[in-house]
Order: sequence, then structure tokens, then C-alpha cells
Amino acid sequence: MKELKLILMGFGAVGKGVAESISIKRNNIKDKFGIDFKLVAVGDSSSSAISANGLDEKLLIETKEKKGTLDKYPEFGSNINGEAVLDKVDYDLLVEATPTNIENGEPAKSLTIKAFNAGKDVVTSNKGHLALFFSEMIEIANQNNVEFKYEASVGGAMPIINFAEKTLPSSKIFSIIGILNGTTNYILSRMTIEGSSYKNTLEESQQLGIAETDPTQDVEGIDAACKTVILANSLLGIPATYSDVEVEGISKITSEAIGLAKKEGYFIKLIAEVSKHALKVSPRLIKKNSPYAIEGTLNMATLKTDLADEVTVVGKGAGSIETASAMLTDIINIIKIKYQK
Amino acid sequence: MKELKLILMGFGAVGKGVAESISIKRNNIKDKFGIDFKLVAVGDSSSSAISANGLDEKLLIETKEKKGTLDKYPEFGSNINGEAVLDKVDYDLLVEATPTNIENGEPAKSLTIKAFNAGKDVVTSNKGHLALFFSEMIEIANQNNVEFKYEASVGGAMPIINFAEKTLPSSKIFSIIGILNGTTNYILSRMTIEGSSYKNTLEESQQLGIAETDPTQDVEGIDAACKTVILANSLLGIPATYSDVEVEGISKITSEAIGLAKKEGYFIKLIAEVSKHALKVSPRLIKKNSPYAIEGTLNMATLKTDLADEVTVVGKGAGSIETASAMLTDIINIIKIKYQK
Repeated sequence: MKELKLILMGFGAVGKGVAESISIKRNNIKDKFGIDFKLVAVGDSSSSAISANGLDEKLLIETKEKKGTLDKYPEFGSNINGEAVLDKVDYDLLVEATPTNIENGEPAKSLTIKAFNAGKDVVTSNKGHLALFFSEMIEIANQNNVEFKYEASVGGAMPIINFAEKTLPSSKIFSIIGILNGTTNYILSRMTIEGSSYKNTLEESQQLGIAETDPTQDVEGIDAACKTVILANSLLGIPATYSDVEVEGISKITSEAIGLAKKEGYFIKLIAEVSKHALKVSPRLIKKNSPYAIEGTLNMATLKTDLADEVTVVGKGAGSIETASAMLTDIINIIKIKYQK
Repeated sequence: MKELKLILMGFGAVGKGVAESISIKRNNIKDKFGIDFKLVAVGDSSSSAISANGLDEKLLIETKEKKGTLDKYPEFGSNINGEAVLDKVDYDLLVEATPTNIENGEPAKSLTIKAFNAGKDVVTSNKGHLALFFSEMIEIANQNNVEFKYEASVGGAMPIINFAEKTLPSSKIFSIIGILNGTTNYILSRMTIEGSSYKNTLEESQQLGIAETDPTQDVEGIDAACKTVILANSLLGIPATYSDVEVEGISKITSEAIGLAKKEGYFIKLIAEVSKHALKVSPRLIKKNSPYAIEGTLNMATLKTDLADEVTVVGKGAGSIETASAMLTDIINIIKIKYQK
């Protein structure tokens, strides 16, 4: 059976989800596509495990969770990290799941370009390099004639890139308006239901692990703005970058404002708008029974099109396995393009 | 430039939408896929227009609207109809948009099988032959190694077949629960908002052209049951047929029942359930702020999956151009598979 040799860089929540998904779906993928996944290297921020004969997904997760770093992986763990990992073993496809860095897009940018230049396909969940250097990344991928897929970077398990490209190719997309950040949607939903303050709700969300210790990227709209840029470039052909997005977060929203809106039949949501006229993330009033009235950590997006009119998709914007499922879908779509002819 | 020769059978609302969509998108498809559409024959219930050099979409629509039948199409109109049309001209793909017939699936069944046996691909918006003979239809398509696509048969412009297959291939789908009939959703929505009776609301819907003169297929749940069968077969691999679906329509729902539900924060919706445990169409209570609380003629479906958890899609379940857009998406997907290698 044909093997697909994968390197996975980044072994936090999403990376571990990828390893787990591969373990769950290996036999299914063998049956359906005649491809056997082999994880030949996995890197975290400081170390890695590398073996041309393949690593064990469950042992990788156990090593990371019990011992903290991958250099403790039996026999094949080492201090090799970053780009050096890609030189140590032959591979077909890089699964890039390092944390988003909106300052310079690293290490995702360098890892991805290195893979492209070696003729390897890349699947990513990262937003930084795409939000800062979208056109450049696509150009380098095209120059090397490799596949570059990033479904997980926008909606987690909510299909949006594939959704537009594969289910609506007959229609022109005019705009995408949606809720692209689950953490802020959770905070606003709780504030609406409980009448609680922003500060208390944020703290509660941090205790539940929904908001991060440093919540800036989520609550100030940075995460949603990155996704806005990715959608603008990929689905609307607008060559925008991060600084083109007008951004306002939710940290100044009071429980009084939410209460007033609620009385009048409205919710306050952090809405991302992607169109030729606006690239914008801001709190907006939305009607109670509209498709935008989703609760909790869900993401949603409404695409306005010419022939199909308005189409809406809703799904989990985060979660380890959920986000990994989008990356696995990207890998399967690459298999269909490149390995099944 | 490569030509794709199409025969369009059925020239009601959907068929006319197909002609109009082709006219709108011809240049776009040329640019994007290097394929030129040529409509070589169009048939209505009693006549046709046939020309190997291609017909004019706008003139077809004008002829049908002003003169009633296609035999009045200048020069190329004739009384040839039904299967005979497929013998009169060379073609690559049959676009089948005849009315759904839940008694015996005709004329869709015979037209489609004739096309399959001639080695032609088929795109359909029809539910009858699929709801009655799904496995047989797929088998004949496979025997002839042709493509058979039916996105438009379930959700109109709401992507559901392509949505599941192309955006969620990494996940196993456990169930699909949704609102698959726009007419009944419109009637129930109006009854909820206005407190009006079923009878009056149905009449109002008929005047608006939302409900048909004979509304049986919609209001008795037959249309939704056909769609349930198609989803069971295509997405869940359940070899069901129409008689396997437990069906209850909306004609016995009173304004009192809707009023009582509303007071408690619920709506009554006609819900289709597709799972290993149930193939069922019935009125159900759904919570006000749930994804099922869509209004008007919209369709929606929530797919429960293993990796991606729950994913929901919402779109227009009917409409001439909207339904045609789904058929055009199917045609484009066939172009990608067969004509772009």
C-alpha cells in the first residue's frame, strides 16, 4: 500500500488532535483511499521525535502529556527542533500546527517555505503567516507546484474555504459576514444570559479554559481579523493583509449595553465582515432570530452569492479534535488530487 | 476550446433557471475551466428544441414564456419529446429537471438510464427515481462508468451532498437532522408569527406561489421524505427506499398547538431525521434559539459527526436560479473530474 509520510510541527492542542485523528482514522483512510499514514517526525517548540519507520501516535501524546517534551519519546526523541527537523527525514507532507504569531508569522512561515522549496505539500492551522504574507505564501507554493491548504486556520471545524470552493463553485461570492472567534462569542453569550460584567465573564472563561491566560488575540479581535484577511484573499481575491482590517474588540462592552440591546430584541456579537467595501471586525447589534444569533463557542458565516443567494454554515470554531478534523480533510483532499490518479 | 454538449430535459422553473444560469456563467466557465457550454437540446413535457450547433438560452426562455411550448422555438422547435430527444443529437451530459414523480419515478428514471447506457453523465434535480430506486440508479451509473450528481434534489441551493462529501471527508456522519421542505417551513413560520389557521395560511402561500395548487407533496411530508431517502443512501450508506420512511405532514397542526408551543419558548417545525435508528419526517418542537429555528422558505441541516462534532448548513431550499446553481455546481464538479486532467 502507498505510504504518505507526514511531518507534524507543533504539538499543542491542535497537534495532539492531529495525532489522535490519524490514529482513529488510519484504517478508514487505508480502506477508502488506499493510503497508509506514517508520522515520520513530530516537533514541539524545543524538541522532536523522528523515525523514518514511523512513530506511534498514542505514545507521542502520552510522552508529551506525562513528560512535557518530545525529546523524552523512547529511542527516537531528541533536541533537534524547528526547521532542522525537516532535514532529518524524508517526508511527503508537512502538517503545520505551531502557534499563530501575528508579529512576523514565525515559525510557520519559515517551516512552510522550507517545505515548499523541497517540493512538499503543506496543511496548516496557522493564521499568522497567512494574515501577514498571504500572496507571498501562495506564490511560493505555486512556484514549487505543491498543494497548500489552510481550512483549519479560519473556522476550526466549521468548513468555510472548502465550503465555498467545493460546494459553491457556480456562484460568485460577494461577501462573507460571520462570527469567526469562539472565545468572544462565548463571553458575549454568557454576558447576555447572565447579565454579568465583562471582567467577571472573562475570568470565568479563563478558568474554564475557553479564554487563554493572555486573552488579547481573542478579545481585541486580532484572531478574527487574521481570519478576515485569509477569507478576503482566498475566497474574494482581495490582496489584503492584516493591517488592512479595521478592528475593534469586545473589551469595552458593558453588561448595560448588552442588557439594553436584549430588551429591544438584539444581541451584541463580534462580527467579521469580508467584502470589497469593508474588511472589518467589530461588535454589532444582531437580531434575535437571525442566523447570527448562535451561542457559546460556535462559529458561523453567511456567504452572499449571486446564484445561490445566501448560504450559512455553522460549526465548532475550536477544539483539539475538531480543528484537527479540518486538517485531516485538507490532507484527504490532497490525496484525492495527487495520489489517486 | 473544449465544448461540453448539454441536453436539458424539463423546462419548468428549474429548467429555465438552468438555461439562465448557463447564459450568465458561460464566459466565467470558459475563463476558469476552459470549457464552453453548448445547449444542444431542451425538452419540455410535449416538445423540444434541438440543434447540434447550440440553442440560445434567452430565446428558449422567451419562447417558453411567451408561446408555452418549445416546438415554437424558431427553426429548431419540434414535437419530438421524451426519450426520443436523446437520440436526435450527440451530447456529453444530461441535465435532468423534469417534475418529481413519486409513483414510478418517470420520466426521470427512463431518461437517466438511457443516458447512462449511452455513456453520458447525468445531473438531476429530481427526487422521484432516487427516492424509489436509489441503489439501482447508482448501480447502472457505475456499470457505465459515468458520473451521476444530484445535489439539487435535496436542498435546492443549500449544499448538503457536496457539503458532506467535500468538506467533511475526514469525519463519519452519524445522523442528519434538518428542515428539508421550504413550503411547510414557510407555512409554519407564518402560523407562528401571525397566529393564523393552517387553512388560511396555506391559501395565502398558494396565492404567493410558495405552495403549489396541489400542495400534497409538500404539506404531507412526501417531498421531505424523498430527500430523507436520498440522504440516507448517499451520505449514510443506508439502502432505504421511500416506503421505509415514517411520514407525518403538517396538515393537522392547529394554530392553538403552535401558540402553546410559542408560549413555552418552542416552535413547531417539520423535521426530517436521517440515522441508522430512524428515517422519519414529522412535526417536532424545537427550541427558539436553536439552529433549527430558521424562518421562511429556508432549509437547514445539522450533521452529527465523530471528529467535527456538529456542523450546520442553511440555504434556500427552492427557487429557480438557486436550485439551478446547485446543478451548475454539479456540472462544474464533473468538469473537474473528467475534463481537466
